[in-house]
Amino acid sequence: MLLIKIGGGKELNLKGIAADLATVDEKFIIVHGANALRDELAQKLGIEKKVVTSLSGYDSVLSDENTIDLMMMAYAGVKNKRIVELLQQNGINAVGLSGVDGKLLQGKRNSGIKVREGGKTLLLRDFSGKPKAINKQLLDLLLENGYTPVLSVPLIDENNFAINSENDDIVALLQSEFKAEKIISLIEAPGFLLDKNDPSSLVSKMSKSELEAMEQKVEGRMKRKILALRKLFESGDTTVILSDGRNENPIKDALNGKGTTIQ
Amino acid sequence: MLLIKIGGGKELNLKGIAADLATVDEKFIIVHGANALRDELAQKLGIEKKVVTSLSGYDSVLSDENTIDLMMMAYAGVKNKRIVELLQQNGINAVGLSGVDGKLLQGKRNSGIKVREGGKTLLLRDFSGKPKAINKQLLDLLLENGYTPVLSVPLIDENNFAINSENDDIVALLQSEFKAEKIISLIEAPGFLLDKNDPSSLVSKMSKSELEAMEQKVEGRMKRKILALRKLFESGDTTVILSDGRNENPIKDALNGKGTTIQ
Repeated sequence: MLLIKIGGGKELNLKGIAADLATVDEKFIIVHGANALRDELAQKLGIEKKVVTSLSGYDSVLSDENTIDLMMMAYAGVKNKRIVELLQQNGINAVGLSGVDGKLLQGKRNSGIKVREGGKTLLLRDFSGKPKAINKQLLDLLLENGYTPVLSVPLIDENNFAINSENDDIVALLQSEFKAEKIISLIEAPGFLLDKNDPSSLVSKMSKSELEAMEQKVEGRMKRKILALRKLFESGDTTVILSDGRNENPIKDALNGKGTTIQ
Repeated sequence: MLLIKIGGGKELNLKGIAADLATVDEKFIIVHGANALRDELAQKLGIEKKVVTSLSGYDSVLSDENTIDLMMMAYAGVKNKRIVELLQQNGINAVGLSGVDGKLLQGKRNSGIKVREGGKTLLLRDFSGKPKAINKQLLDLLLENGYTPVLSVPLIDENNFAINSENDDIVALLQSEFKAEKIISLIEAPGFLLDKNDPSSLVSKMSKSELEAMEQKVEGRMKRKILALRKLFESGDTTVILSDGRNENPIKDALNGKGTTIQ
């Protein structure tokens, strides 16, 4: 079993990814993003990001109903169906599903952000949360019958509302249930770079302990990225490969050891 | 088994439909539209309808790649997932799928439209076609395991491209495979009206032969509507109910004989 995470960047070579996946013998589950498409659509539709500052001083992006509609258009709509179409063209019988379908990806809605407005303290609750459980029975049913699941947000929350979430958390949750031997993450970079502006700073191999050591040294975005990677090892040994999704053969490259391999 | 067709109008009471469906004991499959949402999105995104005139003098709307993207956003994206979400809130374990997912709705792409351009005759092929086969194995798998399929365009064509199609044809094809006892079509009207501007012209009961007789008398849009209804009877006896989807209880009303019942 493989888990394939396809990033949401504009430059990912989806055709190459689909063609490569047709040569893979193992079963796999795909989780994809669509953030570039979502941002493009948001701009065209004039939907602005709502950022609020919490009492404790942190900025958060609020996911309101429009944000979820937008996510359904970009992720569960265009991107999901275009990926399924490409896979079908390569002989892979893909089925695209979001977390609300068959309660496939179940989440817990965030409790809210305390903000100060007009001299009052308000609790703002948006439609976002964290994945907590999956409907493994439905995924197994599809896999056992020859279908390849292609998954995207939104999740479904404890009251059956569609909510936003991080794809990294979804992949980690899937890994805790499926214990995939390999997790391939296709990104818009050659792999893990020590300096994001310098491709020659690529780290081609890393151990789990090197990953942990690095997490202590870095800050911000880099720290969050490493934390997401580290979580993939929490449910047991696996191999995580960060590979350049813009290449001609992103999956073949990953399986041949290009990019960054973490074991 | 019931087949439920939910029209794509803006005024349909989706909450009422979902609540009513939770009281239905039989299994059912839903096919839904989203034309009002699609048109609204097209306008906001500045995607214009491309109309061409064929050599034989007929006007046709061309479905290009943008049209299919738009369909994926409106039908397979927002509308499909919002309906699934509402059904989940009412305890129905719905799974939303388009025709490309697991090759659920397979179509044949239209051969093209001959047009005259710059002194030359060109054959314009767009992404549209007619449904020809369904993946009944996948629908049965879902139904047998307690899931309610919620289906929308696009279809998948013979070369695995996503194509546009008429929902009426999809419902007729599903009926030829499932032989539902009842087909409920939820529309933005009290039922079948002899004069579309006069609600008191509602026909509350019609026989199949009355339907055929009427088809001979009318023209244009009305003729196409009746033809679509007549096709539902081609695979055997059934009951078709046209019901007002704007009411408080659209499904209960339909099952209680409100609207137009055709037997």
